[in-house]
Amino acid sequence: MNYAVVMAGGKGERFWPLSRAGSPKQFLKILSDKTLLEETLERTAALAPLERTLVVAAEAFKKQILEKVPSLSGKNLLLEPEGKNTAPAIALAAVHLAQTDPRAVMIVLPSDHFIEPKERLSRILSAAAERAQEGDFLITLGIVPTRAETGYGYIEVGEKTNETDGIALYKVARFKEKPNRTAAQEYYLDRKHFWNSGMFVWSAAAILKAFERHQPKMYKQLKTYSEAIGTSKEEEGRKKLFAALEPVSVDVAVLEKADNVLTIPSDFTWDDVGSFLALERVRKRDRENNLCLGSSLALSSYETTVINEGEGVVAVFGVSDLVVVKSGDSVLVAHKTRVADLKELTEKLASDPKYKPYL
Amino acid sequence: MNYAVVMAGGKGERFWPLSRAGSPKQFLKILSDKTLLEETLERTAALAPLERTLVVAAEAFKKQILEKVPSLSGKNLLLEPEGKNTAPAIALAAVHLAQTDPRAVMIVLPSDHFIEPKERLSRILSAAAERAQEGDFLITLGIVPTRAETGYGYIEVGEKTNETDGIALYKVARFKEKPNRTAAQEYYLDRKHFWNSGMFVWSAAAILKAFERHQPKMYKQLKTYSEAIGTSKEEEGRKKLFAALEPVSVDVAVLEKADNVLTIPSDFTWDDVGSFLALERVRKRDRENNLCLGSSLALSSYETTVINEGEGVVAVFGVSDLVVVKSGDSVLVAHKTRVADLKELTEKLASDPKYKPYL
Repeated sequence: MNYAVVMAGGKGERFWPLSRAGSPKQFLKILSDKTLLEETLERTAALAPLERTLVVAAEAFKKQILEKVPSLSGKNLLLEPEGKNTAPAIALAAVHLAQTDPRAVMIVLPSDHFIEPKERLSRILSAAAERAQEGDFLITLGIVPTRAETGYGYIEVGEKTNETDGIALYKVARFKEKPNRTAAQEYYLDRKHFWNSGMFVWSAAAILKAFERHQPKMYKQLKTYSEAIGTSKEEEGRKKLFAALEPVSVDVAVLEKADNVLTIPSDFTWDDVGSFLALERVRKRDRENNLCLGSSLALSSYETTVINEGEGVVAVFGVSDLVVVKSGDSVLVAHKTRVADLKELTEKLASDPKYKPYL
Repeated sequence: MNYAVVMAGGKGERFWPLSRAGSPKQFLKILSDKTLLEETLERTAALAPLERTLVVAAEAFKKQILEKVPSLSGKNLLLEPEGKNTAPAIALAAVHLAQTDPRAVMIVLPSDHFIEPKERLSRILSAAAERAQEGDFLITLGIVPTRAETGYGYIEVGEKTNETDGIALYKVARFKEKPNRTAAQEYYLDRKHFWNSGMFVWSAAAILKAFERHQPKMYKQLKTYSEAIGTSKEEEGRKKLFAALEPVSVDVAVLEKADNVLTIPSDFTWDDVGSFLALERVRKRDRENNLCLGSSLALSSYETTVINEGEGVVAVFGVSDLVVVKSGDSVLVAHKTRVADLKELTEKLASDPKYKPYL
């Protein structure tokens, strides 16, 4: 059976002042009048019913998730005592699902991406789930690049293993880090490289087998924890497990080492909403390429994004290539070339007790 | 006797969102923790006691002035039913003072300028007042230029008429409009051109004589009004007078036409605080030439002025040559090359009922 596993552990550090420590990206209504998490759950609804949907998130966000997404109940939540990147989060979901249903297929989706149209996503994920049911494959979704993007990791594919109804599976040759501009241009043109989207499909058994093989120490820790599941020691066991685990991505821990990884080149519109720049890719801009959201105005300005979450008016005049965001009583004015480095600014703010309350 | 006449009719349209329709520049604490009007009154205190100080302002600001400057009483206010530029304001003060004291000397100062040190201003104004007491002169203060400024009008001087203790008086050859860059450069170098500061010293009798000669129609209207002063018809008469008068500056109405105008080249630091750019001339900037006022921060930024009047934090990141101002719940982000044209923006905002409440 298929299970949706929604990864909601993100911190959203590149969206200050919209996102604060207490409200990371997946809880923001950045792209529409719904939070990114809600939009993700609308996508998974076509693949698995609510009772087979798990949201993996930090314990600290439990209350917020249940408030913001009333359709979810405590049973849908799998809480991490602390954030340790994607490998521990996915492994946690895998050991739980393997106990519930030894033939469980996990459809793993980040909670804070933009995807359109969702019908195409569903078709591809369904095809992937069928294949994952059949064998020991670790299937990743690779996005067909629409530009020479340097901000994403890439998947280089090898030979095609099969194709049905226009959905093809390829062996993964290798994973590649964020490229420089020249390499990104080559990847864009050679049609053998795809954006690593962080969307995965595999059986719980297959991913646990991969952990056993490539992360034997971690696998042993998971085994110990799995014996506590459903007992009075589960909570304590999970705390111990997460205290012991190294923070590492599933890509580095397992996928880059495994030889049974497949990719489906996927042709829907996808954006990881990694910074404020995602907004102008996703939302319609005016003739001067400005994007004004909320009570805001751009005059004699170009290529500028203005967001006003609250009252008053935010007006820009004679500027270009800026991102201007007002949220609560704080304001960010950043050059577009720097919004990807916003963490530098938030760390600077965090270092001063005067500014820390506004983070 | 000397009388201080403080002109407080300004609208402050170039300081949105700090200044709103209800609170123009002279009521703002732009340069220090005192309003510009209070700072002006501290300067005039050395020249005339409070009982010989008149503040000429719009009737609409009466309450605000008395609240913000508790030392003033209703007797200090000379209220204009409507703003008609400087000629009507000065003429109004002149007819009142001429009735109170036929030998009154008026020291006319705008309420919203920056001057330092005030001791030097006092010395120059005292010297001017002595000269004004002696004869029929219209004395203007011309500021020795410290840069080739294109934003001010200039006074070209002719022959020197006298000099005492390093304070020289020159005949005015002509008044000149704001120059282009080349002319400004010439003016800066030839030492014959001085910034027209809008500060004047003359006897009430002399300026009224000048109105009689160069603005006979206006003079007749003033005469009619002056008969109502101190009677029950004063208020109604003043309303009629201001409804009838043309809006015109004293420079255009009288000074450019008169042949008895003198100038004292003045060597104190002076700024008309005409836009947000004045702040960086007057206040100390950091090593990157940023000026951060209130709870605000500039990172990887240059030549940028950030003002946060309220709570929260205003952070700029990777930008240059901007003015960023948060006041109330509104925010301005303007390129420095455009802050002098801020009226364009405020007119645009005023044209939309959605934004008008924030002006």
